Amino acid sequence: MKGEGAGRPAVVLLSGGLDSATTLGLALGQGYRCHALTVDYGQKHNAELDCAARVAAALGATSHRVARIDPGGIAGSSLTDTAMSVAKDRTDVEIGEGIPDTYVPARNTLLLSLALGYAEVLRALDLFIGVNAVDYSGYPDCRPEFLSAFENLARLATRTGVEGGRFRVHAPLMSWSKGRIVQAAMEVGLDPALTLSCYDPDDHGRPCGRCDACILRARGFADAGVEDPAIRKA
Amino acid sequence: MKGEGAGRPAVVLLSGGLDSATTLGLALGQGYRCHALTVDYGQKHNAELDCAARVAAALGATSHRVARIDPGGIAGSSLTDTAMSVAKDRTDVEIGEGIPDTYVPARNTLLLSLALGYAEVLRALDLFIGVNAVDYSGYPDCRPEFLSAFENLARLATRTGVEGGRFRVHAPLMSWSKGRIVQAAMEVGLDPALTLSCYDPDDHGRPCGRCDACILRARGFADAGVEDPAIRKA
Repeated sequence: MKGEGAGRPAVVLLSGGLDSATTLGLALGQGYRCHALTVDYGQKHNAELDCAARVAAALGATSHRVARIDPGGIAGSSLTDTAMSVAKDRTDVEIGEGIPDTYVPARNTLLLSLALGYAEVLRALDLFIGVNAVDYSGYPDCRPEFLSAFENLARLATRTGVEGGRFRVHAPLMSWSKGRIVQAAMEVGLDPALTLSCYDPDDHGRPCGRCDACILRARGFADAGVEDPAIRKA
Repeated sequence: MKGEGAGRPAVVLLSGGLDSATTLGLALGQGYRCHALTVDYGQKHNAELDCAARVAAALGATSHRVARIDPGGIAGSSLTDTAMSVAKDRTDVEIGEGIPDTYVPARNTLLLSLALGYAEVLRALDLFIGVNAVDYSGYPDCRPEFLSAFENLARLATRTGVEGGRFRVHAPLMSWSKGRIVQAAMEVGLDPALTLSCYDPDDHGRPCGRCDACILRARGFADAGVEDPAIRKA
């Protein structure tokens, strides 16, 4: 894999969570010049945005930008709607079943659209997104067929596509367990303490330890046999 | 066509220009309960946003919302970049050739992504967008194959799609000339003076009369044999 990027520009969606940070590390390891893009879409966990900036700097992204979306009341998810609460203490079976309340309608479509526009401006053809097998179980827009459909759309939607360019959406974590993601994070030199996975952190940006994201993250660290420094810090 | 909507909810992208306003009128005429969505993506012609609000109220949209995107320096178009100027006084041949500088990278992908998320929240399956044959000549994301690819993506991207819902992107103006659009605007009772098509209006929201959008609009009114009240006003 090393050198596949060969200095080519890439846009890497970076949320501030462990998965997208690991994805950035992997893209950099492949030799891409990585332009990190964080999208503030009104998520309640704003502490993620600070994490994204620290991760981009620590790993050596070429640039880091934040695009902001004010959905103007059109959202509908426990991640963006202050009137909804994030589910806590769910069992494995509950986490694995159906589409969670934390599903943000069309979120990855929106994130990839912004990344695509940015890629056109940068003349980049490679987009990276940290979706993975665990998300796969619940979110429709984390499946390989969704990413293929987006690549097809990108070809038809853009000046670059009309001129023969072919965008590729890389999702290196797609089929990985959380444990393997934690191992990869260590291999790319990511300090997990810089990342925040929690859907419902406190005012100081500390994880709740009880939402699906915290539960899955804890399992990943346990599986990898690594202590999570973000928990130790909290 | 009348009654096709039968009271079903629809999301209508409304820019404040003549085309999207006419599209809203057509959707209402088909019986849809129309939720108008205006997206402020940092376009320089902010007067459009005021026009959108007036058009939504005048035509009888069920609601009108404005979503805002601050691209954070990732845009690259003469419509959003204050360092670029809008082309003026271009000939028919020049307008018809290639992709114009006013192309906003991945714009319609982004607009439709927002509309899709909003539609999921509203439990709507119908999206309307005012792309047309004139745009077709220049913008890749105004072509029928782009809209088909988006419908396919929407099916894979959403909870609604997973549950068997099928989104439809309606583009009633797709194959129409500007003259026919002006005729349709009259038929749906739209006052064109409420709309602004210009890419580069002055500080009072008056059209420049010289950009591609103004030139095409003027031709449409001439073809339809109708005087443009927005020009008279200016």
